[in-house]
Amino acid sequence: MKKLINDPRSVVDEALEGVALAHPELLTVHRDPAFIARAQGATSGKVALVSGGGSGHEPLHGGFVGFGMLDAAVPGPVFTSPTPDPIVAATKAVDGGAGVLHIVKNYTGDVLNFETAADLAEAEGIEVRSVIVNDDVAVKDSLYTAGRRGVAGTVLIEKIAGAAAERGDDLDAVTAIAERVNARVRSMGVALTAPTVPHAGEPSFTIGDDEIEIGIGIHGEPGRERIGLEPADAIVDRILGPILEDLPFESGQKVLLFVNGMGGSPLVELYIVFRRAAQVLGERGIEVARSLVGNHVTSLEMQGFSISVLALDEEMIELWDAPVQTAALRWGR
Amino acid sequence: MKKLINDPRSVVDEALEGVALAHPELLTVHRDPAFIARAQGATSGKVALVSGGGSGHEPLHGGFVGFGMLDAAVPGPVFTSPTPDPIVAATKAVDGGAGVLHIVKNYTGDVLNFETAADLAEAEGIEVRSVIVNDDVAVKDSLYTAGRRGVAGTVLIEKIAGAAAERGDDLDAVTAIAERVNARVRSMGVALTAPTVPHAGEPSFTIGDDEIEIGIGIHGEPGRERIGLEPADAIVDRILGPILEDLPFESGQKVLLFVNGMGGSPLVELYIVFRRAAQVLGERGIEVARSLVGNHVTSLEMQGFSISVLALDEEMIELWDAPVQTAALRWGR
Repeated sequence: MKKLINDPRSVVDEALEGVALAHPELLTVHRDPAFIARAQGATSGKVALVSGGGSGHEPLHGGFVGFGMLDAAVPGPVFTSPTPDPIVAATKAVDGGAGVLHIVKNYTGDVLNFETAADLAEAEGIEVRSVIVNDDVAVKDSLYTAGRRGVAGTVLIEKIAGAAAERGDDLDAVTAIAERVNARVRSMGVALTAPTVPHAGEPSFTIGDDEIEIGIGIHGEPGRERIGLEPADAIVDRILGPILEDLPFESGQKVLLFVNGMGGSPLVELYIVFRRAAQVLGERGIEVARSLVGNHVTSLEMQGFSISVLALDEEMIELWDAPVQTAALRWGR
Repeated sequence: MKKLINDPRSVVDEALEGVALAHPELLTVHRDPAFIARAQGATSGKVALVSGGGSGHEPLHGGFVGFGMLDAAVPGPVFTSPTPDPIVAATKAVDGGAGVLHIVKNYTGDVLNFETAADLAEAEGIEVRSVIVNDDVAVKDSLYTAGRRGVAGTVLIEKIAGAAAERGDDLDAVTAIAERVNARVRSMGVALTAPTVPHAGEPSFTIGDDEIEIGIGIHGEPGRERIGLEPADAIVDRILGPILEDLPFESGQKVLLFVNGMGGSPLVELYIVFRRAAQVLGERGIEVARSLVGNHVTSLEMQGFSISVLALDEEMIELWDAPVQTAALRWGR
């Protein structure tokens, strides 16, 4: 295992210390229990957004805490859900009196722990709603998950619901738009290499030098099939088909096209992927109205990518374009 | 070779097509000869900034074209300087009548081709100045370079000089501040793995499973020494010492601390590196006044990082904080 770490057991703690040192104007890193919140704490009267999950997917979620997006992020151990304790602490810390929305990727551990945390917070008088993100069309009822997995679409939900909260929407409205984005986004991923969890010390799976995994999860969970390496365009076609047919996306639809790197693939390759995806959408009469390209929901150092397509409406476009100021996504302010 | 590409010969062309499709509101990608410019073209009366160099370092340089930073970027083949032709074309396309500053990383091919291009553009009546970036303290007179190499400090020069040009500084003043940043920034890098140039098909160098290269260049050029893998903190200490002693950085100095990923290392590791670097600076009484963490000057999929430290003055802080709107760096607008 070749990593820039000191001790497999201290990876998350030390990275959080780094986050605190790098972004003091933006973020406060709380310890015991650990969560990341906006530096200025709760925003009075605003619906608060809290997300979280296993670490190893950075910048998700801590990189998306800030004006226009999340109020707090709760990092678990690498690829492991945080327990209810820090989720409750984060929920209480950022509640501004207008209620809290939990944005939860659909993994059994996350769903259970966020549910427990929501119950505990509600017992203390905080109104909590939850949206379960399940945008991955690759597989159903896989390792760690009942139903579909939540993957890169999470970023789009956090951005758009975050903007709705920032403009003053109430808890019902923010929850509704988060649900609407989740209902209209579809994703699928591909792996060229396996990630290595620090405390495991070995790659999460073995894959041949000429093989790729189609439909990979963000924790190295198996996908749909293992095939031989193909040209980038052929790989894009393989995963874009199931994505587009699932909603389905119709001709004339405006979409946000998101090519997400899994952590280890260079940006030059992600743009080659974007090129083909945009071409295919164009051929189907689907308009790429907004785009996002980069490493946003990663799987440690895994090489690979995912494509997410979101069927936009005018309100979502307005909320997507609204100002955001986080460590990983920033514009318009 | 396991990459998301179609043909090793078309990597740069197809990635440029992807860039054009992903950022039409921000960038125009010109072909024959190839360069990336701001979508709105030249800004009348403003000093224009043009940079470029081999591809494979993305987002450098194309990702830094836009308001507050570069006016154009000229991508060569992977790890190979662009020829004078596209540099001349880019220079002419973005000249707004106030002259053009070329920002050139110190590699023999880049320096030669930018010099030739500057001569050709001047023959057509455009005033051109150049700053040669040479921030890498690792080695002198290495492969491809006479003197020190230009590495991640380039981003800081492009940002700060770009802000000076945007506020209306003339060519002398913009050149002076670019030179001043170059004179006050020091960098050094480390590799855990080797990059693979697509048309070469093989890793640029061989490195053992338990070895790292200290002082690596951004094209896989050899560094100072090959050592066994160490804890992250020890690696940071090894490269931060030579960086800090070179200027030297004095106690009480405000600095910008930039932890740059080489492309294949996950963000969680870069924050572990940032943590230690900030600790060491703190122990020496050096104040981290600004920070940057992420994959900005990469070497394809190489795992590793570099640290750059810039001795700030008040003007540099103001220019660093000024609005920027590019594909890879965006804030305040």
